Amino acid sequence: MAVNVNRQWRLAERPVGMIAPSNFKWSQEPLPTLEEGQILVRNIYLSLDPTNRGWLGEGENYLPPVDTGEVMRGFGVGVVEQSRNVNFPEGTLVEGFLGWQDYALLDGTNLHKLPSNPSMPLTAYLGLLGFIGMTAYFGLLHIGKPKVGETLVVSGAAGAVGSLVGQIGKIMGCRVVGIAGSEEKCRWLKEELGFDAAINYKTESVLESLQQHCPSGIDVYFENVGGEILDAVLKLINLKARIVLCGLISQYNATQPVPGPYNFINIITKRAKVEGFIVLDYFNRTQEALSNLSEWYAQGKIKYRVDVIDGLENAPRTINKLFNGTNQGKLIIKISDE
Amino acid sequence: MAVNVNRQWRLAERPVGMIAPSNFKWSQEPLPTLEEGQILVRNIYLSLDPTNRGWLGEGENYLPPVDTGEVMRGFGVGVVEQSRNVNFPEGTLVEGFLGWQDYALLDGTNLHKLPSNPSMPLTAYLGLLGFIGMTAYFGLLHIGKPKVGETLVVSGAAGAVGSLVGQIGKIMGCRVVGIAGSEEKCRWLKEELGFDAAINYKTESVLESLQQHCPSGIDVYFENVGGEILDAVLKLINLKARIVLCGLISQYNATQPVPGPYNFINIITKRAKVEGFIVLDYFNRTQEALSNLSEWYAQGKIKYRVDVIDGLENAPRTINKLFNGTNQGKLIIKISDE
Repeated sequence: MAVNVNRQWRLAERPVGMIAPSNFKWSQEPLPTLEEGQILVRNIYLSLDPTNRGWLGEGENYLPPVDTGEVMRGFGVGVVEQSRNVNFPEGTLVEGFLGWQDYALLDGTNLHKLPSNPSMPLTAYLGLLGFIGMTAYFGLLHIGKPKVGETLVVSGAAGAVGSLVGQIGKIMGCRVVGIAGSEEKCRWLKEELGFDAAINYKTESVLESLQQHCPSGIDVYFENVGGEILDAVLKLINLKARIVLCGLISQYNATQPVPGPYNFINIITKRAKVEGFIVLDYFNRTQEALSNLSEWYAQGKIKYRVDVIDGLENAPRTINKLFNGTNQGKLIIKISDE
Repeated sequence: MAVNVNRQWRLAERPVGMIAPSNFKWSQEPLPTLEEGQILVRNIYLSLDPTNRGWLGEGENYLPPVDTGEVMRGFGVGVVEQSRNVNFPEGTLVEGFLGWQDYALLDGTNLHKLPSNPSMPLTAYLGLLGFIGMTAYFGLLHIGKPKVGETLVVSGAAGAVGSLVGQIGKIMGCRVVGIAGSEEKCRWLKEELGFDAAINYKTESVLESLQQHCPSGIDVYFENVGGEILDAVLKLINLKARIVLCGLISQYNATQPVPGPYNFINIITKRAKVEGFIVLDYFNRTQEALSNLSEWYAQGKIKYRVDVIDGLENAPRTINKLFNGTNQGKLIIKISDE
């Protein structure tokens, strides 16, 4: 729904623990008047991601924290509605940090254009063909470096990134074991996505199930979660294992310091490599990922699902679906019509 | 002192916490009679190293645990006194796992020959030109990959490995900051070895001192210690920092599970790499290290010191000097005369 005011979610106070709707303030302001070089983007889809929680802390992160009073940062897809910038004419589809608002006033910096006739639904640009797909692709292939016949374990396996990581692992010829938080998710991983095994961490002993499903040990671990799951994996890693540290969602809402893994010393005994990874570092080489991911998708080798919630007003109460595990696919807020 | 029985320290019971002399049993056995292919090595120097503690646990390690009743494993230098193996004639100087005993009965497997006229004291083959030197060389250069102008921090900096790491870092053009456990050690690092700064972790706040001495952050960290020191370093690492995990001596005597670093998540935000390292993996390429280390030593760019304690009988009560920090250089037991 297009509107002629700009409705916005601004940060009211930093969350302590889980995000509460009261951490944000709903505000409205008139649409701005453009200056030379500026564009006004009508936001269509807003991506909600675990990493958003990190931007709300006071502490240092890979991006500066969102300050109280500021519009909440968010990645999204939109369309240029007004333009005084020749590089972004009206009607251009774009993706970038558009924020939790109806309209973004931008100068085009760090804004990417989408194809004018996208071959896939726009929501795909917030998943398979966006940050999410790039994260899975570069994290697994450039950091994890899986080889045919190796065992790949993925935590947060039914999440937007994890589900792609596991499928790319299968394409690479790995045995793939996913860890997720419900029977439905585990079934989806095994029956729809072709994972070799899936472990429900809420009902199973992760260590025992990993022992059972990884009879040759673990060569590559794609980490989205942290905590006890990481400790169980570290117990079972093979010599020269690679651990891709993509996320540690289990601790994003922690209110006390969280210890690192107790089996940290196994990194030495197994000569393993633990490498932190943020997809922003790969933005000058997205073409490689895009063309492979698109091809795999066209060949039916990769599937994804989206969980689209209607209405900007629902963003604050929706984001915790990522942390309580109730989302079913890439979590997206629909702000206006395509 | 050569003897005509073989005195041995055998493991009596696994230590709980710090090693106690009562964990070992002093035994004697007659010298063996050689079979074809065997050699009898008279042990001259025995190396005592923090990693020995790891071999005494029940758990998995990079080498199998020493079983109770077995002669304690130890690396050493000796001379072939009897030989029925053409590859190791009498009088050959050798280094390898000779054990905590006067004589080692071996078949030559995994045994290295030393030059017949060594250009350096034999003890150097347990330090600069042995495991220790290789550990410092390959760990720093192949894992840490320091670049000119970067800041290198070393913990356990006055230890046998750490003191070499820092000096090699200086040769590579780094700013080098060492962390050690006494004023004397810190003075030695700065005044004798040319470290840019040294921090006494027993009297200073490691975090505050690192902040002061690493104004441009930390690019490479060579880790021998773990615990709070690792956490302080993780707070100050730069983007793409490399952490060489060589040892975690602070937890080798722990009787309870030890948590990993609380700032573990900084590995992600800084896209850092933490890599476990064991020198055994580099034994097919020691020549590169040996020739460089020898040359640097001859040029006066590298110094080392040894702490030689006389008498095999003193091994069990000496090894804890490594853990209480009272050793002053590479800790070595002299078993017999050269």
